[in-house]
Amino acid sequence: MGAREYTGGGRAAAYAGAGRIEVRDNAVTGPGPGQVQIRVAYCGICGTDLHILHGDMDHRVNPPQAIGHEMSGTVEAVGDGVGSVRPGDPVTVMPLDWCGDCPACRAGHQHICQRLAFVGIETTGAMQELWTVPESVVVPLPAGMSLEHAALVEPLAVASHDVRRSRLTEGETALIIGGGPIGQLIALVAAQAGAHVVLSEPNAGRRAFAARHGATVVDPVEEDLAARVQELTGDAGVDVVFEVAGVAATALEATAHARTRGRVVMVAIHPRPVPIDLHRVFWRELELIGARVYEREDFEHAIALIARGAIPADELITATVPLERTAEAFESLARAESMKVLIDVQH
Amino acid sequence: MGAREYTGGGRAAAYAGAGRIEVRDNAVTGPGPGQVQIRVAYCGICGTDLHILHGDMDHRVNPPQAIGHEMSGTVEAVGDGVGSVRPGDPVTVMPLDWCGDCPACRAGHQHICQRLAFVGIETTGAMQELWTVPESVVVPLPAGMSLEHAALVEPLAVASHDVRRSRLTEGETALIIGGGPIGQLIALVAAQAGAHVVLSEPNAGRRAFAARHGATVVDPVEEDLAARVQELTGDAGVDVVFEVAGVAATALEATAHARTRGRVVMVAIHPRPVPIDLHRVFWRELELIGARVYEREDFEHAIALIARGAIPADELITATVPLERTAEAFESLARAESMKVLIDVQH
Repeated sequence: MGAREYTGGGRAAAYAGAGRIEVRDNAVTGPGPGQVQIRVAYCGICGTDLHILHGDMDHRVNPPQAIGHEMSGTVEAVGDGVGSVRPGDPVTVMPLDWCGDCPACRAGHQHICQRLAFVGIETTGAMQELWTVPESVVVPLPAGMSLEHAALVEPLAVASHDVRRSRLTEGETALIIGGGPIGQLIALVAAQAGAHVVLSEPNAGRRAFAARHGATVVDPVEEDLAARVQELTGDAGVDVVFEVAGVAATALEATAHARTRGRVVMVAIHPRPVPIDLHRVFWRELELIGARVYEREDFEHAIALIARGAIPADELITATVPLERTAEAFESLARAESMKVLIDVQH
Repeated sequence: MGAREYTGGGRAAAYAGAGRIEVRDNAVTGPGPGQVQIRVAYCGICGTDLHILHGDMDHRVNPPQAIGHEMSGTVEAVGDGVGSVRPGDPVTVMPLDWCGDCPACRAGHQHICQRLAFVGIETTGAMQELWTVPESVVVPLPAGMSLEHAALVEPLAVASHDVRRSRLTEGETALIIGGGPIGQLIALVAAQAGAHVVLSEPNAGRRAFAARHGATVVDPVEEDLAARVQELTGDAGVDVVFEVAGVAATALEATAHARTRGRVVMVAIHPRPVPIDLHRVFWRELELIGARVYEREDFEHAIALIARGAIPADELITATVPLERTAEAFESLARAESMKVLIDVQH
C-alpha cells in the first residue's frame, strides 16, 4: 500500500530500515480537504513498532517513514469540510482506515476491513511534530484529560476490545497468561468489569504491578499454574483465558485452564500455525476467540476509564523521552521493568 | 468406571477384545428401582463403536460387553418408582449419565459433566435383546414413528447440537468439510435451518448424496476448495465451517474459508494437538467452537425432524443386518458407500 500522502511534517522520528531510527526534519504537508492536522503531544511505542524497527514489517512500511500510533495531541488546523473538531481541541486517533466496500465492511466489521490500512504502518505515523490524518480517524478527548494519560487510550482500547470479545461478566474469573503491557491492561479492564483476575507472569516486577492492582498472581516457573487454577476455581477452571504471552507453549496450555463452555481469547499474534489441543476444545465445549484491534466503542470505553481515574496511568508510563532520543526509548523497552514508554514529540 | 450393573440380557453382540465381536446369551437383569427395561428394536453403529472394536478405547470399556447406543425400542418393564414411561411405549435413549454435582453439572452443562459416564461405553450398550437403563436417559418417541428411523435420532441429535453450537441462522452459508454420516446429517440439519450448504468430500457417492439433498458439492481433490468458497460467497468466506473430516490438514485449512467474524465448529475428534492458523483466527476475528454430544433439546429437535419427514431416513440407512451378523455389519462400514448400518436386534 505504501505511505499515503496525508503525512504531516516538522521534526520526526523515522524508521529508516532494519534497526535504524533517524530523527529528521520533514516539510509540512496538509491538511487537505477532509483532513485534520494534529500537533502531536505524546506517542507511545507499541510492540508493532518494535516489529517494524526489527525489519519484520518491511512489506507494509515505506522507509524513511515516521511511525507510531499510540498518540495524543491538539488540533492545529483543519482542512475544508472538517466539522467534527476545531483547532485547539484535544484529540487522539483510532488508526484504522477502512475501504467501506469489502464484504467485512459491508457486514459492519470495518475495523477488520479486508483492505484495512493501519495508520502509522501503511501510512506515516505520529512520531512527528505535525501529523495529518483523515477526519474519520480523529477521536475527541474530554477537556482536561492529561495528554500523557491520553497516549494510553489506544493500547487500552485494545485491551477493552479483548475483554469485550471474551464476553466477560461481573463475578467471572479471568486468567491472563503474560503480564506485559497488554496483559496488564487486560487485567485492569477485566477488574473494572468486576471480574476476579489471575495473572501468570514469570517476571517478579510485572507480577508485583498486577498484584498492586488487585490481581492474584502466579509465577508459572516456580508454581504449577494448572494446579493453582484448579485450587482457585474449585476444580472448575476459569471462565475466560487471555493468551497474551505469544509462545507456542502457552497457546497449547491455554485451553487446559478453561472451565466447561469457557472462552479462550487469543490476544497474542502467532505468525505461524501452532498446535492447539482440539480434544480439550471438544471435551469442554470451549470457544477460541480471535480479537484484533478495536472498534469505536472500545476507544470510548478506554477514554472513560482514563477520565474517571480507573487506570493507574502514571504508574503504567515508565518513562517519557524527548523525540531526539527515540532510538534509546526503543532500546529501553527490551527491559522487562518497562511498561509504557512515551515519546514527548514537541521536546 | 467399568460396566455398571444396570445391564440387560438375552442375545447380545459383545465386544470381546480388540477386533472381536461375540454374539452370546446373557442372563436377564433388572429393571431395578428407577430403571427401565427396553426391548431393543434397532441399534446403529457409530464411529465410536468402531474405535471400541479396534481396541482404541479399552480404558473405558469392560469386555465382554454389549456395545451400541444409537437405538430404538419399546419399554418391556419398568422398575419401582418409574413414572415417565410405561410398558409398550416406543423410546430411544440419550446415553449420558452425569453426576449432577461437579462444576460443569452445577453450571448447567450436565451433558459435558466432568465425571460423565457414556451409556454404551462406560456401561453395557444396546446391542442386546433387553437393555436396562436408568429412567433419566429414556426419551419417549411419538406414536407411529418407524423404529428403524428412530435409530437415527441419536446421531441426528449430534448434528443438531453441532448446528446449534454454530449459531447458524437462516440465509447464512455453511461449509461442511467431510461427507461421512455426521457431515451429511449436519448438512441436512443446516439446510432445514434455512442455510445454504456447501459440502466438500472426495468420494463421488457421498457428494451425490449431499447434492440430492440440496448441497452445493465440491471435490477438494479435483477442485480448489478455497477458490470455490470465494466464488460462492463473493470473496467474503462462509459464515460457518464444520470441520468433520478429522485430519490435520482440514483442521488447518478450516479457518481459511470463514468470513470475518465467522465461526468454525470443530466436530471431528483430534486426539492429539494439531496446528491451527491462529493468525487467521486473529486477522478475521474468528471463533473456534467445540461441540460434544448433545442436550435434551437436541434430541427433541432430532425427533421432530424425523417425525415430519424432513430427513431422508430410508436413504441414510444403507443396510439393516440381524444381530447374528453384527461383525459383518461392522466390516461393511469400512466401505465409503455405507451411511448408517443398523443391527436388527430381535432377529
